[in-house]
Amino acid sequence: MSHYSVKKGAFFMGFGLSNVVLVKSDKHGRMIPEALDAAIEESKKKGFTPLMVNGTSGTTVMGAYDPLNEIADVCERQGNIWLHVDACWGGAALLSLKLRHKMKGIERADSIAWDPHKMAGAILQCAVLITKHKDLLAEAHTAGARYLFQQDKVYDCSYDTGDKSVQCGRKIDAFKLWLLWKAYGSSGMAERIESCFDNALYLRQLLTETPGFRLLFEEQECTNTCFWYIPPSMRGQVAPAIKGQMQVTGSMMIGYQPQGQFVNFFRMIVASPMTTREDMQHVISTIQRHGQNL
Amino acid sequence: MSHYSVKKGAFFMGFGLSNVVLVKSDKHGRMIPEALDAAIEESKKKGFTPLMVNGTSGTTVMGAYDPLNEIADVCERQGNIWLHVDACWGGAALLSLKLRHKMKGIERADSIAWDPHKMAGAILQCAVLITKHKDLLAEAHTAGARYLFQQDKVYDCSYDTGDKSVQCGRKIDAFKLWLLWKAYGSSGMAERIESCFDNALYLRQLLTETPGFRLLFEEQECTNTCFWYIPPSMRGQVAPAIKGQMQVTGSMMIGYQPQGQFVNFFRMIVASPMTTREDMQHVISTIQRHGQNL
Repeated sequence: MSHYSVKKGAFFMGFGLSNVVLVKSDKHGRMIPEALDAAIEESKKKGFTPLMVNGTSGTTVMGAYDPLNEIADVCERQGNIWLHVDACWGGAALLSLKLRHKMKGIERADSIAWDPHKMAGAILQCAVLITKHKDLLAEAHTAGARYLFQQDKVYDCSYDTGDKSVQCGRKIDAFKLWLLWKAYGSSGMAERIESCFDNALYLRQLLTETPGFRLLFEEQECTNTCFWYIPPSMRGQVAPAIKGQMQVTGSMMIGYQPQGQFVNFFRMIVASPMTTREDMQHVISTIQRHGQNL
Repeated sequence: MSHYSVKKGAFFMGFGLSNVVLVKSDKHGRMIPEALDAAIEESKKKGFTPLMVNGTSGTTVMGAYDPLNEIADVCERQGNIWLHVDACWGGAALLSLKLRHKMKGIERADSIAWDPHKMAGAILQCAVLITKHKDLLAEAHTAGARYLFQQDKVYDCSYDTGDKSVQCGRKIDAFKLWLLWKAYGSSGMAERIESCFDNALYLRQLLTETPGFRLLFEEQECTNTCFWYIPPSMRGQVAPAIKGQMQVTGSMMIGYQPQGQFVNFFRMIVASPMTTREDMQHVISTIQRHGQNL
C-alpha cells in the first residue's frame, strides 16, 4: 500500500503515471513478494525496464510493514533493481531493539526516506533521505553554481551540502534530529517509541472490551489502530459526524478514512511518547459521548 | 542573470539542460529584451517551442531588476509564453511605494516566486509561489489520494491545500508571513524594506569615501553592494583570506564571490531592518582591521 507520493513523484519527474505499476498486497496491506516478481516479469515482457521498487515500512492507513528481505531478494534476482524504502511513518521502529525486527532487510535498501517528525517526536518538519550510494546526490543534483558555492573557503568545502540538494537555502532540519538524539540518547529514543507501541496495543485491547467498537483487522503491526464506532442510532456516516462534532466543540481530533471495501473508519495513531493509558481511555469515552448525540 | 535553480529545475523536471537557453544581460546583469526576442526567434527556427521565460527581480549577486514590462511584451508577441518572475530576493521592494517601481510589469507575470525569509524579515523558511492561474496547482499536482484527503469533512474541503502542493505534510510557512504582516502592517513592512535600501546606499557612500575600497559598478538597484578591498600589502586573494580570518576569529560574516571577469569581491547585502548606520561603519572597520594582518 505505497503512499500516493510515489505516483506524485512519477508524474513530477516525467515518468508518467502509466509507468507506475501497482503490486498486489495481502489483506493487511503488505506487499506480496511473488506478486512483485510476477509484475516485474510482465513489465519486462512488454519491453519495459523496471528501475525502482518502493517498499513501505509502516503504511499510512494500516501501518503495515512490507517484507523487505523477500522484496530485496526479488530486486537482486531481477537485475539489481533500485530498492527504495518509504519508512517515513514506521521507520522509528529501528530505534528500538524490541521493534526493529519489523524492518528486517532495511540494510539492503538503496535509499530510505524517514520522517523523524512523525513517530520519533522531532518537531515538524524533519525529513531524512538516506542512501548508501556515496556521491550520488552530488552527481545527481550539483549544478556547479560557483558564484554561490565558492571552493576557496577557509574550511573543507566538501561539507557544504547546498548544491547537493534539490533546493538551495533551507533550514537544516537534520539539526532537530541531532538535538533530540543528544537529549534522549539511543535508549531514551527507544523507550519513547516503545511507549507508542505499548499504548496502541492497550487501546486495541480497550476497543475489544468496549461495546460499540469494532476493529478492522485481527492483527496490527504499527501503532495504527483502525476501528469503527457504531452508536445504536446510526450505522452510516458515524465517523465524519463524530469528527465534525469533535472539531466544532474542540473536544478531540482523530482522523478517519475509507479504504477499499471498508467505509469510513477512525484511524487512531499513537505518535507521541507523552501519551498515557488515560489518554487511550479518553479516546474511547470522548467518542462514546459524541455518539450519544447522534 | 537567472539563479541556478532555473537550470536545476530544468534537469529535475526532465527538460534537460540543453533546453535552457541563456539570454544576454547588460553589464548590470539585467536581461536585454531584444536579446530575449532574438533567442526565442532562433529557438523557433530550430523547431523548438519556447514555453517559459524566467525574469528576475533582484539577481543574486548584483541585485539587478529585469525590465519586466519589456520582457512581458516579448512573451505576449511571441505567442503568450509563460512569464515566471523569480522575485525571491528583490520581491520585497513591492512592499514599498517608493521602491515598487523597480518591478513595474510584475502584474503581467504568470507566476512569481518570492522568499519573505530574505529581505522581508520572515524567519527561515518562508517561500511563496503566486500564480494568477486559478485551479492550476490543483490540476497539476492533485493525485486524488482520497484515503488522505477526505471530502466528507465538517468544513469546506476546497481550503485543504495538501494535495495541491508538490509535498504532502509540511509546516504552513505562509503563517509566518501573515503574522509578520499583521504585526507591522503595510506601512511598517515598507519602512523595514526602505531602511535596508537606505543603509545599503549609505554603505555605498562610505565605500567611495574610504581608501582601499572599490565599487564594482557605478550604479546599484537592490541592496547588494559589490566591492573589493585591497590592503596595501596584497592584491590577490584578499576576500577569501579576510573572510577566513573573520570566521576563525568570529568577528563578522560577509560573503564573497567571483563573477565573469571580476575576481573575488565582497558582496554585502542589507536584509534586516534592524541594521543601522553604525553597522555599516562596522563592516568597513572590521574589514580594514583584518586587512592589517595580511
